[in-house]
Amino acid sequence: MREMLETFILPKLKGDVGDVPLSALDDSGVIDDIVFTIDGHTVKPLFFPGGDIGSLSVAGTVNDIAVMGARPVALALSLVIEEGLESEVLEKVMDSIARASEKAGVPVMAGDTKVVERGAADKLIVTTSGIGVRSHWLDANIRILKKIRHTHIRWLKDSNVQAGDKIIVSGTVGDHGIAVLSCRDGYGFESDIVSDVCSLNHMIEKALAIGGIVAMKDPTRGGLANTLNEFAEKSGVGIEIDESLIPINPGVKTACGLLGIDPLEIGNEGKAVMAVAPEKADAVLECLRATPEGKDASIIGQASSEIKGVLMTTIIGGRRVVEPPIGDPVPRIC
Amino acid sequence: MREMLETFILPKLKGDVGDVPLSALDDSGVIDDIVFTIDGHTVKPLFFPGGDIGSLSVAGTVNDIAVMGARPVALALSLVIEEGLESEVLEKVMDSIARASEKAGVPVMAGDTKVVERGAADKLIVTTSGIGVRSHWLDANIRILKKIRHTHIRWLKDSNVQAGDKIIVSGTVGDHGIAVLSCRDGYGFESDIVSDVCSLNHMIEKALAIGGIVAMKDPTRGGLANTLNEFAEKSGVGIEIDESLIPINPGVKTACGLLGIDPLEIGNEGKAVMAVAPEKADAVLECLRATPEGKDASIIGQASSEIKGVLMTTIIGGRRVVEPPIGDPVPRIC
Repeated sequence: MREMLETFILPKLKGDVGDVPLSALDDSGVIDDIVFTIDGHTVKPLFFPGGDIGSLSVAGTVNDIAVMGARPVALALSLVIEEGLESEVLEKVMDSIARASEKAGVPVMAGDTKVVERGAADKLIVTTSGIGVRSHWLDANIRILKKIRHTHIRWLKDSNVQAGDKIIVSGTVGDHGIAVLSCRDGYGFESDIVSDVCSLNHMIEKALAIGGIVAMKDPTRGGLANTLNEFAEKSGVGIEIDESLIPINPGVKTACGLLGIDPLEIGNEGKAVMAVAPEKADAVLECLRATPEGKDASIIGQASSEIKGVLMTTIIGGRRVVEPPIGDPVPRIC
Repeated sequence: MREMLETFILPKLKGDVGDVPLSALDDSGVIDDIVFTIDGHTVKPLFFPGGDIGSLSVAGTVNDIAVMGARPVALALSLVIEEGLESEVLEKVMDSIARASEKAGVPVMAGDTKVVERGAADKLIVTTSGIGVRSHWLDANIRILKKIRHTHIRWLKDSNVQAGDKIIVSGTVGDHGIAVLSCRDGYGFESDIVSDVCSLNHMIEKALAIGGIVAMKDPTRGGLANTLNEFAEKSGVGIEIDESLIPINPGVKTACGLLGIDPLEIGNEGKAVMAVAPEKADAVLECLRATPEGKDASIIGQASSEIKGVLMTTIIGGRRVVEPPIGDPVPRIC
């Protein structure tokens, strides 16, 4: 995927425009103080424990905006429908989109619908785009941060992390991917794992009001492993984490063991990873834990100038390199 | 399509938010002075005379923003790629997107790429979203309009048309749909028609500087027939047009005759339809005709309080009702 992006897609586009340009490969681009993002959703099956393609589409886009520190303002929705899709399916998905949009407080402002013949799409593809604007909670966060250190941060970019910053994950990892797999043809296994799909804008707003947050990302495709490597690479720091501090559901751990998948590489859809100035890390953690979305939040490590890449102290002892995942361990979970 | 939208999609969403809400079903939605739109592109084949899915995606989105009177600021690009798509195809499409984006002056600021297994998409689906902001040429247009009439127009909405307003189409109709059909399996016919796919923002900017434009729309799906009916219905006026004044390429006319398709119902991808205060119609027409995109522009009729719906004086004599098209006469042309 990265190779395809770097060979055929990114070099073609003028990637250097805006406050957060396309070439930054951050969660959203930013231009003229408008935060802008898009995501195509091809999850299979359309309905899975804890969510469906509708709730996924809303959360994925809302979160990409919220993790920049912005206030999500509106969504746009593009449906590609395969001929013959049962109207009940479409209705259920639309109900789910409506509920998720209402709960996040981010309305759908624009849309498009195309119907294609059988075989030209797999039932339903939902693409959501979102826009956001500067929020006073982002400004408050930056004001507090400036009392702690000299900084010119304007948005919560992946490249903002400094040695010493604490790394917080807002809850258990791997739930979404395992929940989708558990009900997929050819994989189907007994599991009570439900997807974490959830819009995080309200939780993030509260955390930013505490202040001191430096960078934020939602660990979707490529999971925590990818997110930490992006922080490390773009910020030019190392990151050391402790496996025993990473929140993970026992069922996810078991399923990952059986399937031979690294839970750190599985996509999440209702989690945020934050780099926080150490002076504020405990307060941000406490704030997160007081929210339903962040009740399992944990400080899992810190950025360091002593190492390169991402290093994890494992439960069985020793340290291992956490590599950025090569390709999706599981396709079509988002 | 309209029935599906009105039964399963629109009632689910909170359609009344923003300056131009979703329920207005205008070319873009507008909230907090940000113009926002999205379009999924499933055109078949991917390459056609005069363009391809890449140039189509850029023009479609840029035009949806420009016809609101806004300045398009950025695009977001979501690709769904069927496994096995030749890399040369992807590269050609990306080159085309880059060229179209550069020419329109609207950069791609965000993106997403998903690869799905064979049969889960037809080669390539390109979804583009776009954002725009208020432009000084829209403000100039409104200032000039206010000297002519008492009005509270803020955006070029479909519902702004008043009796007496002149209807201008910026060039020949039907080219895009016929160009795509001419190279499609099962239809393929000899034709020298090329698609009109083209970003119109620069042309529209010049026309707005002349002033007096009341409403604007790009006649994509459903063609001119749909656009005029939307103006009529949403503005509560009738529209009378003269068939002999509608610009149409002879090749398009011939192909439509052979295929039994009404050229007024065929989608265009590089045309704008405008309602203009009569005092300014000739000046706007002259301005359009001085641009390469608008050289065939024509005043084709006017809004009227004397009739309902859309009535056309035909070339063979008499008048006929121009109905809003029921479904696409030709699927997958955009």
